[in-house]
Amino acid sequence: MDELKVIQIKEEVTAKNDEEAAAVRTMLKSHKTYLVNLMSSPGAGKTTLLCHLIPLLTEHGLRVGVMEADIDGECDAETIMEKTKAKAIQIHTGGACHLTAQMTKEGLENLSLDDFDIVFLENIGNLVCPAEFDTGANTKLVLFSVPEGDDKPLKYPLMFEVADLVCVTKIDTLPAFDFDKDKLIANVHKRNPDAKVLFLSSKKDQNIDQVSDYLIERVTSFIR
Amino acid sequence: MDELKVIQIKEEVTAKNDEEAAAVRTMLKSHKTYLVNLMSSPGAGKTTLLCHLIPLLTEHGLRVGVMEADIDGECDAETIMEKTKAKAIQIHTGGACHLTAQMTKEGLENLSLDDFDIVFLENIGNLVCPAEFDTGANTKLVLFSVPEGDDKPLKYPLMFEVADLVCVTKIDTLPAFDFDKDKLIANVHKRNPDAKVLFLSSKKDQNIDQVSDYLIERVTSFIR
Repeated sequence: MDELKVIQIKEEVTAKNDEEAAAVRTMLKSHKTYLVNLMSSPGAGKTTLLCHLIPLLTEHGLRVGVMEADIDGECDAETIMEKTKAKAIQIHTGGACHLTAQMTKEGLENLSLDDFDIVFLENIGNLVCPAEFDTGANTKLVLFSVPEGDDKPLKYPLMFEVADLVCVTKIDTLPAFDFDKDKLIANVHKRNPDAKVLFLSSKKDQNIDQVSDYLIERVTSFIR
Repeated sequence: MDELKVIQIKEEVTAKNDEEAAAVRTMLKSHKTYLVNLMSSPGAGKTTLLCHLIPLLTEHGLRVGVMEADIDGECDAETIMEKTKAKAIQIHTGGACHLTAQMTKEGLENLSLDDFDIVFLENIGNLVCPAEFDTGANTKLVLFSVPEGDDKPLKYPLMFEVADLVCVTKIDTLPAFDFDKDKLIANVHKRNPDAKVLFLSSKKDQNIDQVSDYLIERVTSFIR
């Protein structure tokens, strides 16, 4: 099998995915549902942030849904439903390291979209592959935890290039690590000068309102 | 483009990779060089562990080489050379989320293998894709840090299924996290009853000798 064939197939896969992502966006627009693609490394705190963020969105009157993507297991969807009462469904990728637009579409078809103003798509924990696939989401929220180190935007460039909002999680653990907040911000902006950077701790309920404010503003103008 | 075509291509890619991995193993055997495939999430501490581990191996008389794989950047190879004096080369994957056997072979051809008893291949930080590709390495060392959470072996099954040794890093940060060591061990063994689990802190130089003992035993019997 020659290299050219692999490259050609990859281009076909990406082109097909872009078409399907456009279809997802049309579907979301017709139902006035705003979709957030939540991406990070494993264990950066995606599910924990959702557990603290959803109540703030609900209080504001937004109807929230969650699609949890995992290679295996169902603990995240159960956690979300138990802790936030939001409707959550589980998507299994069957070993795949990222979500495609097609998988996203299938997930959305399992929610009654008219019942939701905002849906979170919790992607597979991976700082590489999910960045390559447009899921059709309206915004890309990248989580990134203090223990991972302030140099990571330099090493995983695409994820930070595509991010609309970068949330630095676990800031309550700053004293335990050599982590320079200014360096992190500079490294993010080297990849993407337009990305907004927020620092938060879900555990200590710190600055979660900054994330909800960011989303409420965008959802409100989207569903208006 | 139909699904079947994608599956067929994937099988061809994997079969070709397995052939190339066998060739890498033959090459290693003829030069009596032991190759370690070092895998983890981004920021779990692969480079930092190497900086503390290599001096112990060198003291024992082993000649150590390092191949640093990154999507972009050269800081890891520079760090290794500066801190350990070991020979280190950088491999850029050009955006790819894992190393193939072919990339590994090209890296090894840039080292004079007769000059090394043990070579570390620091894979791309990713708990998913690198597990799918046999690089031809003699052992697979998976790093996993306390901040990532004790549930990760359940969510990223293949990485823990293929691991020979699981090193839990950053144990000096245990007080800052809800992390149950026994639960982690049980979760690893659910995926792989044969995997050995070690707990360590590079920052506090804690238990690094357990990793070096593990490797010295294997390298010695390999090059004998």
